[in-house]
Amino acid sequence: MTKINISKRGRTAPSSPIRELIPFAQKAKEKGIKIYHLNIGDPDFPIPDKVKEALIDKAKIINRMPYPGFRGQPELLNAWKKYYEDINVIYEIENEDMIVTAGASDAMSLITTLVADAGDEVIVFEPFYAPYQIYAKYSGVKLVAVPLDSKNGYHLPTVSEISKKITNKTKAIFFTNPNNPTGTVFTRKEIETLILISKKHNLFLIGDETYRGMVFDGLESLSLLHLAKKTDLDRIIIADSLSKRLNVCGARIGLILSKNRELMDSAFRFTQGRPYATYLEQEITAPMVGDSIQYVLWLSKQYQKRRDTFIKALQSQMSIDVQIPEGAFYLMLKLPITDTTKFAKWLLTDFSHKNETVMVSPASGFYATPGKGMDEIRIAYVINEKDLAHAAELLALAIKQYNDIT
Amino acid sequence: MTKINISKRGRTAPSSPIRELIPFAQKAKEKGIKIYHLNIGDPDFPIPDKVKEALIDKAKIINRMPYPGFRGQPELLNAWKKYYEDINVIYEIENEDMIVTAGASDAMSLITTLVADAGDEVIVFEPFYAPYQIYAKYSGVKLVAVPLDSKNGYHLPTVSEISKKITNKTKAIFFTNPNNPTGTVFTRKEIETLILISKKHNLFLIGDETYRGMVFDGLESLSLLHLAKKTDLDRIIIADSLSKRLNVCGARIGLILSKNRELMDSAFRFTQGRPYATYLEQEITAPMVGDSIQYVLWLSKQYQKRRDTFIKALQSQMSIDVQIPEGAFYLMLKLPITDTTKFAKWLLTDFSHKNETVMVSPASGFYATPGKGMDEIRIAYVINEKDLAHAAELLALAIKQYNDIT
Repeated sequence: MTKINISKRGRTAPSSPIRELIPFAQKAKEKGIKIYHLNIGDPDFPIPDKVKEALIDKAKIINRMPYPGFRGQPELLNAWKKYYEDINVIYEIENEDMIVTAGASDAMSLITTLVADAGDEVIVFEPFYAPYQIYAKYSGVKLVAVPLDSKNGYHLPTVSEISKKITNKTKAIFFTNPNNPTGTVFTRKEIETLILISKKHNLFLIGDETYRGMVFDGLESLSLLHLAKKTDLDRIIIADSLSKRLNVCGARIGLILSKNRELMDSAFRFTQGRPYATYLEQEITAPMVGDSIQYVLWLSKQYQKRRDTFIKALQSQMSIDVQIPEGAFYLMLKLPITDTTKFAKWLLTDFSHKNETVMVSPASGFYATPGKGMDEIRIAYVINEKDLAHAAELLALAIKQYNDIT
Repeated sequence: MTKINISKRGRTAPSSPIRELIPFAQKAKEKGIKIYHLNIGDPDFPIPDKVKEALIDKAKIINRMPYPGFRGQPELLNAWKKYYEDINVIYEIENEDMIVTAGASDAMSLITTLVADAGDEVIVFEPFYAPYQIYAKYSGVKLVAVPLDSKNGYHLPTVSEISKKITNKTKAIFFTNPNNPTGTVFTRKEIETLILISKKHNLFLIGDETYRGMVFDGLESLSLLHLAKKTDLDRIIIADSLSKRLNVCGARIGLILSKNRELMDSAFRFTQGRPYATYLEQEITAPMVGDSIQYVLWLSKQYQKRRDTFIKALQSQMSIDVQIPEGAFYLMLKLPITDTTKFAKWLLTDFSHKNETVMVSPASGFYATPGKGMDEIRIAYVINEKDLAHAAELLALAIKQYNDIT
């Protein structure tokens, strides 16, 4: 019998080194080992009271679950407009500028398709959010990586370092701010520089602003929409999400926002054929979206304390340089280990201390360049401070033990 | 300033002639005109009690909305396995055969990417579910249309009519059964023929079985999984959905199901980067999915009555041949009108009778071949019988009036 083959893009789609660990974690749990999860950005915070109350109220009266509006439910669109007013973006946001999506994933995936054709290139700053590789694969688009340097806190390199990666096939720059996996919060000057570069080379500038507002130490959290000039607006596209700001990762609610009407018209045509955001989650998050500024401030303080707790606990156990993250809830760590993918697996298969271990993300999946990130891991500090401190101690112990035996 | 251009696929993505009518419907409503909606498959039936009860219970105790499992929530996967047992598919379904998606849209969109690369071809039977054009555009895949004939109830043409459209670029056949927009339920023989064709040409056979079980007049509702031989399983892929069978269109819960492990492994890698199905909807639909056979039987009876009511009311008002649909809840109607897109718009902008009108889908969007379907409309009988009968009378009146003035 002739074997049937799936598509080339299907065969070559990258697997996630993070998620390949999941079966090993399951086996460890079956052996009775407690795992401290620092591996995925799925926070332990409860959903906001206002979301929970809206859900209870809606559950009582719901009769139908119809298709939501193709652009999004009106209440949610209105709430999102109010949110942008509240954070003082300098342009008035209209309904036609927005399309609700199934999280920032759906937004970024659709945006990739809308700015680039198969064979085109998009600039990313490396390390970057691993699923960008999946959106690119889906669309046949090539990611071209501009390296960031841990030594300057993964801030942007020089203009010439960026510009030299731009070719006549480059269509856009992906810009995650605050950044995942590095926790970097980009400055006003850096953002203005990127806007200038995108203008000079006539590129789209795509801001993945999932972690907007989640910043520490009194830093400013700036959106592209705070700094883009009116004449630049056509090239600015925002991917937004409620997942992290409102602790509703599983609600899958995101947004595409752009003043480029041609782009939004096309996005609307695609969304009509593939509406992925649900009716209920749009209804129950709307009240909170329009009233979320204080909540995000509170949340950021919690993450700042967690960051400090984790780093302090880790450095009390071992000598290690740490680039202090400025926002989101991630931390990149360079370990004295040559292959953190093996180490992360070993943590689940071979290591345990008093029947406990820790799960981390090997960093290679955040790089497009082969061989990069092999000695790094990403920590998501999404568990409580006491557990975080304990997990840091476990991690330090594991690193020592791993280096003793290998 | 240099204008920035979106991608070619973005510029050329087809708009939906159906959904372009929405602004006109809104204006009609603002003028106080009541619209009977026969234009979209969004049924008026309430969500099943079991789903509503699960929602109320869950709302009370929910604390977090975490990411669901990347393959789907275990309860839902188990329920879906039980459902397939209950409908007597001949193979045991395992977790590795399934990935929960955001409706059949997400499933079909991802499947398109997995079976074909940009430039490859997929066979569709025309008229077909309009969003297939969007999934193809997204993936750079070309839809090649095999025409169905209204005169034989839109059943399959001869093997040679199908085979002559297959080229060395063809990778798959899309097969919607029961069919949207025609309401055709394909016979055992037709399905077996398609399996043979796909085997002979080494193609994937992709069954969009969203309306499975929704059949009339005692017909059999057969899945590809009822008829595929074990040696054919590698080429069989099913897109499933709860939207219509459980009246939860807005819950966006679907499924990719295949025994082709290479395909499912790749689908899993994509889904890890873009999980679109929500946590809550998976939790609250699971109890119903495993216990839905009787409900779907009841629902089918309701739609059969609606079908009969609509056709009887229409034929009492005008002389018109109708191909009696065998399942789902759609009806294709050939009208004595040369351009139904104009007519459907006119219904909203110019026609009203006692301050009421009707909204229908012009059929051109269900065809890839330019010029086809111009004299057809699709009716979705998703409103109650009394309103349906009244809407049929309004439609007959409008057709007469339109032909008098044009």
